[in-house]
Amino acid sequence: MNEPTAIPGYSYGTSAVPPSPVTLADFELMKKSVLFGDEDVEYLRLSHDVVKDHVEAILDVWYGFVGSNPHLLASFTGKRDGEPLGDYLGAVRERFGQWILDTARAEYDQKWLDYQHEIGLRHHRAKKNRTDGAASTEIVPFRDLFLLVVPVTFTLKPFLAKKGHPAEDVEKMYLAWVKSCLLQMTLWTHPYVKDGDF
Amino acid sequence: MNEPTAIPGYSYGTSAVPPSPVTLADFELMKKSVLFGDEDVEYLRLSHDVVKDHVEAILDVWYGFVGSNPHLLASFTGKRDGEPLGDYLGAVRERFGQWILDTARAEYDQKWLDYQHEIGLRHHRAKKNRTDGAASTEIVPFRDLFLLVVPVTFTLKPFLAKKGHPAEDVEKMYLAWVKSCLLQMTLWTHPYVKDGDF
Ligand code: HEM
Ligand code: HEM
Repeated sequence: MNEPTAIPGYSYGTSAVPPSPVTLADFELMKKSVLFGDEDVEYLRLSHDVVKDHVEAILDVWYGFVGSNPHLLASFTGKRDGEPLGDYLGAVRERFGQWILDTARAEYDQKWLDYQHEIGLRHHRAKKNRTDGAASTEIVPFRDLFLLVVPVTFTLKPFLAKKGHPAEDVEKMYLAWVKSCLLQMTLWTHPYVKDGDF
Repeated sequence: MNEPTAIPGYSYGTSAVPPSPVTLADFELMKKSVLFGDEDVEYLRLSHDVVKDHVEAILDVWYGFVGSNPHLLASFTGKRDGEPLGDYLGAVRERFGQWILDTARAEYDQKWLDYQHEIGLRHHRAKKNRTDGAASTEIVPFRDLFLLVVPVTFTLKPFLAKKGHPAEDVEKMYLAWVKSCLLQMTLWTHPYVKDGDF
């Protein structure tokens, strides 16, 4: 991010975002656990140029997956009637598109860390629905969060090949995305974890 | 499992294992979230014949990784003196070897589900150290659990190629392992998650 943006609710880098309970030093150790190194940063950044021209097409695939799985779509439905909330889906989709670019930018400073916690709060009952004033379910259940890393990254792979990079580089971009998603999801799930167990 | 085994503390399929709070129906939906299908079962089972001859070598690599990362080794050290507990490491290693075979066997019944919860309890403060009577730290921190899926599966890959399967099949075995590990880790982390948030 860092460029001014007009995406509603996208508060990355602003004072509206509370500090993350995880420190940058903790995050350095987490990188070691997932074998995340300088090469992964390099390949994430290489992917930026590739994905930036396909954000809408990527979102179409991801939203298609969520939309075709009732147990996932449930998190975007009305609390009362269980019907999909078009406005909510649309508002989140804009920030999701920006997230693709932010993930590919791979800049890990305090502002990035704080926004990861904010994204976690927005999936959790602590803050779900608030950003968009949606009348939806109370929480995105924990059980699906890490599991979605597979469809998200697997369906990204064909897009990573769209600029003609050698298969070996596509593979490295893909693996860097998997690692980055696992790191982010671990930060996001902090609000779900019992006090002292993180 | 199912064959009688003499591994201390390995209670898979016995009445000592409490029932999982997750149902087999929940687990079916979790499979959908991670794109886990019949082909993955097939490729996990194909991997059984490949990995069964290399269990000790695989464990050497994984234990090497944990041993060379102080923040990971910490979970196997004495609570008082911070020194690695050889007996504890050795006892867990035997069950870890059996886990490799169980994962490759890919039999998902109630006994399997219950033992996944048991493994989760054994990482959590609920039951860590009890099986081996170890005087170690109180909990394996949540933060590293999903992250370890990458080193575990990535370092498994060369072993999956040891029987000369085509690269395409090795890739499919690898991806099935990644999905299975994410499914298991999600089941394992149930004791870490706040009531009602799973
Ligand atoms: C790899 C997995 C996932 C990724 C990468 C992801 C990514 C995102 C992103 C980037 C946002 C917008 C954050 C912002 O406000 O800036 C978001 C919001 C949201 N996601 Fe996810 N998500 C994942 C898993 C899931 C799952 C499994 C569900 C359940 C179906 C889900 C449901 C939602 C909902 C309902 C919101 C809106 C939350 C709100 O009310 O603010 N997400 N997600
Ligand atoms: C992909 C990640 C992981 C896998 C596949 C895994 C697998 C296992 C298995 C199979 C066992 C034995 C279960 C049994 O008793 O039958 C075990 C126990 C154990 N693991 Fe993990 N583990 C993972 C992550 C971690 C991490 C990140 C740590 C922290 C360094 C850790 C520390 C331990 C400890 C201390 C035990 C012994 C628990 C006890 O006291 O019973 N594990 N693990």
